[in-house]
Amino acid sequence: MTDAHDTQVTVLGLGAMGAAMARTLLAAGHPATVWNRTPHRADDLVAAGARAADTAEHAVTSSPLVIACLFDYDSVYEVLDPVARSLSGRVLVNVTTGSPAQAREMAGWAHDHGITYLDGGMLAVPETIGQPGAAIFYSGAPAAFEQYRPVLDAVADSHYVGDDAGAAALHDLALLAGMYAMFAGFFHGAAMVSTAGVSAKEFAALAGPWLTAMTASLPDLAESIDSGDYTTDVQDLEFTKSAVDLIVRAGRDQHVGAGVLEPVQRIIDAQIADGHGDEVFSRIYEGITHP
Amino acid sequence: MTDAHDTQVTVLGLGAMGAAMARTLLAAGHPATVWNRTPHRADDLVAAGARAADTAEHAVTSSPLVIACLFDYDSVYEVLDPVARSLSGRVLVNVTTGSPAQAREMAGWAHDHGITYLDGGMLAVPETIGQPGAAIFYSGAPAAFEQYRPVLDAVADSHYVGDDAGAAALHDLALLAGMYAMFAGFFHGAAMVSTAGVSAKEFAALAGPWLTAMTASLPDLAESIDSGDYTTDVQDLEFTKSAVDLIVRAGRDQHVGAGVLEPVQRIIDAQIADGHGDEVFSRIYEGITHP
Repeated sequence: MTDAHDTQVTVLGLGAMGAAMARTLLAAGHPATVWNRTPHRADDLVAAGARAADTAEHAVTSSPLVIACLFDYDSVYEVLDPVARSLSGRVLVNVTTGSPAQAREMAGWAHDHGITYLDGGMLAVPETIGQPGAAIFYSGAPAAFEQYRPVLDAVADSHYVGDDAGAAALHDLALLAGMYAMFAGFFHGAAMVSTAGVSAKEFAALAGPWLTAMTASLPDLAESIDSGDYTTDVQDLEFTKSAVDLIVRAGRDQHVGAGVLEPVQRIIDAQIADGHGDEVFSRIYEGITHP
Repeated sequence: MTDAHDTQVTVLGLGAMGAAMARTLLAAGHPATVWNRTPHRADDLVAAGARAADTAEHAVTSSPLVIACLFDYDSVYEVLDPVARSLSGRVLVNVTTGSPAQAREMAGWAHDHGITYLDGGMLAVPETIGQPGAAIFYSGAPAAFEQYRPVLDAVADSHYVGDDAGAAALHDLALLAGMYAMFAGFFHGAAMVSTAGVSAKEFAALAGPWLTAMTASLPDLAESIDSGDYTTDVQDLEFTKSAVDLIVRAGRDQHVGAGVLEPVQRIIDAQIADGHGDEVFSRIYEGITHP
């Protein structure tokens, strides 16, 4: 473990997220070097005590720990491939948003250049960096994670999810899938009640506690998934079908919905056609994981 | 208001939900008459103090308040249309699951027969009836709701949502839309991380707190929807698109997902094509409400 207060750290990329990370690291007492393709983005951070590197080469040679927070993976290669030799022997933490496959490919590139690689997947927005509730998944080199964890913890809660470099992005995208699906369902519901003059604000006041209460079912749903035992003596998939069909039909009657739940409806129908109508709702997992 | 402890009440339909309602009403001290097409379903309730009616006619004439919890709306008409004259002057609370349009149609039928009509939409499963957390939306005759609210509150928290008889089902289905979408997103995410050997139980332990935290965004999303002001200076729809595209692509790479988020992706693309790429994520509401 490294003393959290004297680790030199470099941040590449000063968009909203990179700048928030650099600002938080400075506030936690780390000597930070920053670099951005458009240099003026560094001005505020320099005023807050950061050192601005004039080139990516200087940026990566300033610190043993280099955090890349760029637009996309192409930008990371564009910036780092020309300076890979200088990055050799250092730790690269790449929090640029990308797919598990992209993370694995970059881990291979890093390995080929003697660079220790950690991939990061963010459950945070720039406003929450350094605040309670922000989390970042990390995967890749375990020793580097242990060494720099105190530094990384200054930015957000750090969760190490395995040495497969793609695991962080996979966890991140999996949780974002849940979030976007939930928000889409909220929009669908808000659109439905709007036809009766109910505001989205009024609906949010109902939906927030309701959806929160429903997350209490996730461990039970998970248990049936993990065990593969989808038998039930209460509400079965035929019951779920009648509810989902009503939602889709009521949405169409009101000219709202735009198909948000149609994939769910399709998967339910396919599972019932395969003879699983008397099994529990979570059976549809099998239609998602083995489509 | 009616004294909660001496209101005669009849429950028609003793499936899991109707039986749970009858049992809860008896436990709260109400003289309950029960009826089911298959009479043996009443045996347990008779043992608990209920009176079993031998015909639907006898059932509806036993109480001023008749609760129907049948398989579907067709069953309600089948049972009640022949005894509509006997039901005249009484209050019918229909908690049978159906669409807003079906509820409105039945309110019209009840009106034609001099029956006071309340429609109910359930946010409950049989196991939660009479327990904290169970809720039922009611819509239709406001005076009947006020009069019988103490009785209805014994079954679940009662929320009156307006004199449009369809409003209860609309609220119910809207919240169920949010729930099913959230669960589908959870399944999608669980399927994604399963490819890295993560169990659904482990994923549920991450997803529960995460989705709960994300419900805190609903009032903000609602505000943009209600105001129609989708401007943002932080993460815009182009940013959302890149995240959702990654989720869909990562799902396809792992052969999971089965299109759960494809409607969301389609709506985002259409909003961006319409020139809204620099607006906030909740802009997609417009693609759901005006598809």
